[in-house]
Amino acid sequence: MSRRVEPVRVWRVQGAAAAPEEVDWLAVEEPLEIRIDGRAVAVTMRTPGDDLELAAGFLFTEGVIDGEDDLAALAMVDSPQDPQGNRVDALLASGVPPARRTRADRALFASSSCGICGKASIDRIRQLVTPAAAPLVVEPAVLHRLPQILTEAQAVFEQTGGLHAAALFSADGELEVMREDIGRHNAVDKVIGWRLRQDRVPISDRLLLVSGRAGFEIVQKAAVAGIPMLAAVGAPSSLAAQLAAEVGMTLIGFLRDGRYNRYG
Amino acid sequence: MSRRVEPVRVWRVQGAAAAPEEVDWLAVEEPLEIRIDGRAVAVTMRTPGDDLELAAGFLFTEGVIDGEDDLAALAMVDSPQDPQGNRVDALLASGVPPARRTRADRALFASSSCGICGKASIDRIRQLVTPAAAPLVVEPAVLHRLPQILTEAQAVFEQTGGLHAAALFSADGELEVMREDIGRHNAVDKVIGWRLRQDRVPISDRLLLVSGRAGFEIVQKAAVAGIPMLAAVGAPSSLAAQLAAEVGMTLIGFLRDGRYNRYG
Repeated sequence: MSRRVEPVRVWRVQGAAAAPEEVDWLAVEEPLEIRIDGRAVAVTMRTPGDDLELAAGFLFTEGVIDGEDDLAALAMVDSPQDPQGNRVDALLASGVPPARRTRADRALFASSSCGICGKASIDRIRQLVTPAAAPLVVEPAVLHRLPQILTEAQAVFEQTGGLHAAALFSADGELEVMREDIGRHNAVDKVIGWRLRQDRVPISDRLLLVSGRAGFEIVQKAAVAGIPMLAAVGAPSSLAAQLAAEVGMTLIGFLRDGRYNRYG
Repeated sequence: MSRRVEPVRVWRVQGAAAAPEEVDWLAVEEPLEIRIDGRAVAVTMRTPGDDLELAAGFLFTEGVIDGEDDLAALAMVDSPQDPQGNRVDALLASGVPPARRTRADRALFASSSCGICGKASIDRIRQLVTPAAAPLVVEPAVLHRLPQILTEAQAVFEQTGGLHAAALFSADGELEVMREDIGRHNAVDKVIGWRLRQDRVPISDRLLLVSGRAGFEIVQKAAVAGIPMLAAVGAPSSLAAQLAAEVGMTLIGFLRDGRYNRYG
């Protein structure tokens, strides 16, 4: 069992009254080092669990691998300095071209909320994107149901209030897979990596739902995976809407309380 | 006036009924390149506005500069490729030692939710931290008032629902400065950079309030700035609580609806 929550001492205050010391549970945040052929290419702060899926999804959505076949091996590795297993080593198949192997260096720059040169990136994304075979048609009544299904699937969130969720749904609203993480982009990589490890990418017949906001990076990752529809419980950003429009992805925001916005 | 919001076409759906096309406003997300002496050291996805403060705060909280004196010059620079002014160039003072100049390279790795090796980082943070002169004593009644003050100060959030906020308050609850950004860490850097540009760091007599969750990186930045108390409307992470305890920072979570948790 992964360490997804950790105990911490807490004093709860309501109004002016402080309760005696208690134990509370916080979502775990720990670094995961992702290595390619023994070389560290990225470190992401993540919630432990589904680490191989996270690494596989990250390498896929950053354009290093095109599918499961590109991975000769993927395994957690320990080191004397870090016996907690916060390291994943990916061995690329011999057929992976050098140009893709070095994409990881740029990915480091590109990954996460911190970084990417927008324009260069949008151009790069365009090359990586799997064109959606067709738009996904989802009835409004189905969309309205999804946030509740996501919440019910989130075991950890209830406990800590600290985890983001990402999930794939079919067009008729059936939950296929849900993953949680302290980082929204990691939750998305875990979900996409789960499909990749079963050799089931691109993901042309599913919508991706995220628990919070949808920034550029979330649209980027979904686009590379060929996902035709992205729905967010929170607000999208300007660049997210722009990229979604460019790649022909349906973008839904503020999906809650029986309402949503569709951007185009 | 900075481009903090951008219009987008939207179709609002309530239940099964879709309204005709309208214009909605989204929070702007654009890349900002931060350069030192002409060399790009970081690209952050941010909401335009207060970019010099953001760059100054970033360079300070990542340990490159110790104060305003270390900046010989700080200016927006255009380039033919990017006439929109998404680039800040910092010229370091001649007295800044080489070891600090190269910290920016590690900062690239370290900045944002994506990256840092936790243990190495915590060791590094410990060297950078300005010890708080004394804990900040804030009455519960004062703390309870702060989220409302923050919300009222958030002009853009009301419009888009998409921006994080960070603010400094005195011990008696007076708002000193509030900044917004699509990235929580950027909002924090903007607030700290605002103080730095007035040559008013460390920030030993203020508490920092953030609108959402508090992860490791937020505690890191506050600790480097010498801030004695961090309050978050949302949940802290395990590593955030651990680092706050190590550096003697008071950490408050779930500050809303007349309640909060104090971690120790």
